[in-house]
Amino acid sequence: MSQAKVGIIMGSKSDLPVMKEAAEILTELKVPFELTIVSAHRTPERMHDYATTARDKGLHVIIAGAGGAAHLPGMVASMTTLPVIGVPVKSSNSIDGWDSVLSILQMPGGVPVATVALNGAKNAGILAAQIVSNSDSKVAGNLKSYKEQMRSKVEDTARDIEENGWQ
Amino acid sequence: MSQAKVGIIMGSKSDLPVMKEAAEILTELKVPFELTIVSAHRTPERMHDYATTARDKGLHVIIAGAGGAAHLPGMVASMTTLPVIGVPVKSSNSIDGWDSVLSILQMPGGVPVATVALNGAKNAGILAAQIVSNSDSKVAGNLKSYKEQMRSKVEDTARDIEENGWQ
Amino acid sequence: MSQAKVGIIMGSKSDLPVMKEAAEILTELKVPFELTIVSAHRTPERMHDYATTARDKGLHVIIAGAGGAAHLPGMVASMTTLPVIGVPVKSSNSIDGWDSVLSILQMPGGVPVATVALNGAKNAGILAAQIVSNSDSKVAGNLKSYKEQMRSKVEDTARDIEENGWQ
Amino acid sequence: MSQAKVGIIMGSKSDLPVMKEAAEILTELKVPFELTIVSAHRTPERMHDYATTARDKGLHVIIAGAGGAAHLPGMVASMTTLPVIGVPVKSSNSIDGWDSVLSILQMPGGVPVATVALNGAKNAGILAAQIVSNSDSKVAGNLKSYKEQMRSKVEDTARDIEENGWQ
Amino acid sequence: MSQAKVGIIMGSKSDLPVMKEAAEILTELKVPFELTIVSAHRTPERMHDYATTARDKGLHVIIAGAGGAAHLPGMVASMTTLPVIGVPVKSSNSIDGWDSVLSILQMPGGVPVATVALNGAKNAGILAAQIVSNSDSKVAGNLKSYKEQMRSKVEDTARDIEENGWQ
Amino acid sequence: MSQAKVGIIMGSKSDLPVMKEAAEILTELKVPFELTIVSAHRTPERMHDYATTARDKGLHVIIAGAGGAAHLPGMVASMTTLPVIGVPVKSSNSIDGWDSVLSILQMPGGVPVATVALNGAKNAGILAAQIVSNSDSKVAGNLKSYKEQMRSKVEDTARDIEENGWQ
Amino acid sequence: MSQAKVGIIMGSKSDLPVMKEAAEILTELKVPFELTIVSAHRTPERMHDYATTARDKGLHVIIAGAGGAAHLPGMVASMTTLPVIGVPVKSSNSIDGWDSVLSILQMPGGVPVATVALNGAKNAGILAAQIVSNSDSKVAGNLKSYKEQMRSKVEDTARDIEENGWQ
Amino acid sequence: MSQAKVGIIMGSKSDLPVMKEAAEILTELKVPFELTIVSAHRTPERMHDYATTARDKGLHVIIAGAGGAAHLPGMVASMTTLPVIGVPVKSSNSIDGWDSVLSILQMPGGVPVATVALNGAKNAGILAAQIVSNSDSKVAGNLKSYKEQMRSKVEDTARDIEENGWQ
Repeated sequence: MSQAKVGIIMGSKSDLPVMKEAAEILTELKVPFELTIVSAHRTPERMHDYATTARDKGLHVIIAGAGGAAHLPGMVASMTTLPVIGVPVKSSNSIDGWDSVLSILQMPGGVPVATVALNGAKNAGILAAQIVSNSDSKVAGNLKSYKEQMRSKVEDTARDIEENGWQ
Repeated sequence: MSQAKVGIIMGSKSDLPVMKEAAEILTELKVPFELTIVSAHRTPERMHDYATTARDKGLHVIIAGAGGAAHLPGMVASMTTLPVIGVPVKSSNSIDGWDSVLSILQMPGGVPVATVALNGAKNAGILAAQIVSNSDSKVAGNLKSYKEQMRSKVEDTARDIEENGWQ
Repeated sequence: MSQAKVGIIMGSKSDLPVMKEAAEILTELKVPFELTIVSAHRTPERMHDYATTARDKGLHVIIAGAGGAAHLPGMVASMTTLPVIGVPVKSSNSIDGWDSVLSILQMPGGVPVATVALNGAKNAGILAAQIVSNSDSKVAGNLKSYKEQMRSKVEDTARDIEENGWQ
Repeated sequence: MSQAKVGIIMGSKSDLPVMKEAAEILTELKVPFELTIVSAHRTPERMHDYATTARDKGLHVIIAGAGGAAHLPGMVASMTTLPVIGVPVKSSNSIDGWDSVLSILQMPGGVPVATVALNGAKNAGILAAQIVSNSDSKVAGNLKSYKEQMRSKVEDTARDIEENGWQ
Repeated sequence: MSQAKVGIIMGSKSDLPVMKEAAEILTELKVPFELTIVSAHRTPERMHDYATTARDKGLHVIIAGAGGAAHLPGMVASMTTLPVIGVPVKSSNSIDGWDSVLSILQMPGGVPVATVALNGAKNAGILAAQIVSNSDSKVAGNLKSYKEQMRSKVEDTARDIEENGWQ
Repeated sequence: MSQAKVGIIMGSKSDLPVMKEAAEILTELKVPFELTIVSAHRTPERMHDYATTARDKGLHVIIAGAGGAAHLPGMVASMTTLPVIGVPVKSSNSIDGWDSVLSILQMPGGVPVATVALNGAKNAGILAAQIVSNSDSKVAGNLKSYKEQMRSKVEDTARDIEENGWQ
Repeated sequence: MSQAKVGIIMGSKSDLPVMKEAAEILTELKVPFELTIVSAHRTPERMHDYATTARDKGLHVIIAGAGGAAHLPGMVASMTTLPVIGVPVKSSNSIDGWDSVLSILQMPGGVPVATVALNGAKNAGILAAQIVSNSDSKVAGNLKSYKEQMRSKVEDTARDIEENGWQ
Repeated sequence: MSQAKVGIIMGSKSDLPVMKEAAEILTELKVPFELTIVSAHRTPERMHDYATTARDKGLHVIIAGAGGAAHLPGMVASMTTLPVIGVPVKSSNSIDGWDSVLSILQMPGGVPVATVALNGAKNAGILAAQIVSNSDSKVAGNLKSYKEQMRSKVEDTARDIEENGWQ
């Protein structure tokens, strides 16, 4: 695949079962990406390097997932001018996910993070593709098809229920 | 100013005191935009028209702000493949803003909304500029300068406190 | 059964295990209904058609269930003058159900949704029957019997415990 | 005005500033109503009388507003087969309104309350009118006009902002 | 056993696994009690009878447990001048127990409910015994012994860990 | 007045504007009480003395109010077998009162605190009187009159609104 | 091992599965500690003895864990001038852990508790070691090595994923 | 004053009205400190320099205050082995302070932050002094006196109320 447009990072390998959905949908939408582990709290220098070189490497957008007091998305956003998408991950000792949601969402003025739903890595991937689609009409086309497939599936299910009953 | 790249919409004129911060920062960052009122619940057809024509009009990203059970960002996102940024607005009868935050953030798989902080319209503007910056190097430069100004201001304040005391 | 008085819709087939309780109680109360899938985010046009034709089809009330950022009940309510009952469904990535509850309940002035408890599809069905009962005395009678049965069951259980002990 | 179709009750006169919005919109929509004070906790017998005679008096729906541990809507619903609309009122020592919202919304199976937004008495009035509209085509027409007026107002504001700017 | 001093009631038999802990501790503390089912929403008249005759029957205190929009403790308190202890029960569709806690705790001025912890039926029993102990020195003695046993058990466990290690 | 039956304590003089409502209603209900300041965190020995001598002094019940991480009611309850009523006080840096509510309510098995509503000192006073009423028929009579006055006031207001309108 | 520098206490043996992580990390970091059971509510005198003798015994810091209305850390802090670290334990009837978090965190001015994350006993141990490290350069060295090991592990995982793929 | 033992930092000058209470109590307790502005999101390099040189400069503990998605305390803790005390500041667009509390408290295993109450800068100062007191007996003495003063003040207020009444 060609040069990565999207960088997917996460604080720990334990986030991978959630975060891989971003990789899968980007694969389906044919958007080139890279994926690795970067921890804000255990590898702050590595995070610094990743964030400050991202634009020059050709990335258009970074997807960062983390749980608990989730500082990775916001800290990466503080060190780049690329759009950063944050995925709150519901980790084991999380207080129902509120901690990761609020740590990612409530960024101060000047440093936005594009936050998606709790465990919403799939949507992070689609959002990244939408951003890429502004300068890549093939991706725009793929997104359009994807939307139409979603519609069709709902309509098929609806027809099935209407014809065969809900029981 | 040239052709709008960012569309700013909000559910009601009462959202303008919050949402104008998006317009102001986009003006400062020299990103052309348009701004109007579109209500999901009171003008659903108008919302449909706005969303389905946005990409062909040349918009790269839509910023949608709303309060309470805030359906505008998510419904617009359901009708376009452009990235949609949602701004939860803390309206008068809101339950501390939780209603707008959750109605915008917790979108189902397939239809992302890039959510920013409660009343975070300024960050929505910066995020929109970051998205535009992928195909506009001038905006990328403006974002870099903006980031440096933020840094300088903090450093100046720090120096002032260190030299003149905190009392 | 005669012409449907109640329309039951839901955003996804995965809502059916919850929403079928509305269908079951309406069957028990002998209120004719129809049931299908309509997704606010994946089939917005279908939702528009459903909502705008509902009154002319003879429906008296619409029951709409959805989870997460649940926009279906409110958006349907924005396109009809029929009463709309919203059922917050606790979906898998929900933040404890708060997202669906608040997205349905906190509608802005002018566009009410009659919200019932989290996963409260049975109560949505009874509420729909109560609405229908205003112009259908048979349904009113069925509701009265249903209430009496509930009372009897509690009294029977109470008597059993009082006579046979709680151990 | 003719025979009341809607009964508006509230736990205390201090709820009137919120609850009068239900009366005002019903007046505007030309739906006859009555309004009084009934307290679940201070006048339980009065509540019993009100609830058990409501249908025979000709009421089609009851709107009940209360704050804190708000038991009025649910207790009235337990004693009538009419639809009951509950309005959570944000009272002075409320915990941000959560107490009234949850006390009204989370009714057990068998006894629904049609809950509207916190302080949403206006929407309670509109919902009551929608219920009445099933057997009163004039009210149905009034609701349709009301919806169109809402749409017009938004469009006028939008046009004003588009033509005269948002500053 | 002699005449009941404590009345234990609950909204449904499904509350018994929680509520029986009140009965068990009262048995242990040798406080005579009675136990039955009374539902605020399904048997409002039965609740009225229970509450209004409780003092004359010789009860000193009523323990009432309920889940969801839990109206039983507060409504009983509105119809008697006996102290009423409320036990919030975490039922299946509860929103994490917040609904029962707030519906019982946040009573308006004039009608108190002595609320204990979520599922805290055991503590409700002890609190009832404490109330009875004001006019029954044997129960006071039993409470004192119970407190000493609790202390001893902790001290024994502590000694065991200190001597044998925590591994 | 005769020997105090109720002890009212609070963590700080700043709690007095809330807690004095307990004193006022006890005065009205003619229940003898004493009132002082006892801080769990700043005077733990004083708290120990107060709690361990309370029953021998003739108190029947202790009302303890505190804000934030409110440990006073629970710690007093750990050192006496008297019933302890806890009043969560909404202090200045409280997180909306949730901290005081949960610190008082969620006591572990074995050590109950009878919790009333946030800032519910008046209800704490009435609850204390209800406890005292078990061995003091005059107080029982006063409580009955108080309840009847509450009912009368609501009925008077209702009559006024029904006769003179709600406008 | 030499004289204990850290005291680990908890309200109940049922807290041990969580709290032993503090003991394990202190063992790994070679910080001498002692561990026992002290209950605020069941052994208040024992708690008093423990807290008031802790500094003279040579302890530098106390780690206290408790669940629900968790009073142990704050009460110990009220009786010593040593730093006290509080570990909120998510116990069985906890309301999602909010009760323990807020009961420990929201201490009034004058009596701090150093609160760590829900179930964060491991971090409590590290924090205790950091406090000890101010007067023990070996512990400081051990903490530095521990930090480097954490970094290495993340880098190894990252390298593995980059080289072998994320699938 | 001698060499600083405590470093106080905060994300913005707007945090100073809260954070200066830490400086004031440290002054009162005679613990030398320094105070400046360091922003995690606007000056990440400055934060890195501050954190990595803190121990060598002779600091024993760092107090870091921040609001919203408060990353400063946790990020500083990731780059030093000194104890870090976090002060959640309730900023203007905060969601009731929950965002700062959770972003600071819920740190992942390996990187603790000693969190104090919302706006609890005074307690952060006392906690810092307690940490310093382990190697500075004068500070230990000052803390003991401070505790005694707190006790005396409560006792004086109590005596005043007992003698002069609470009215």
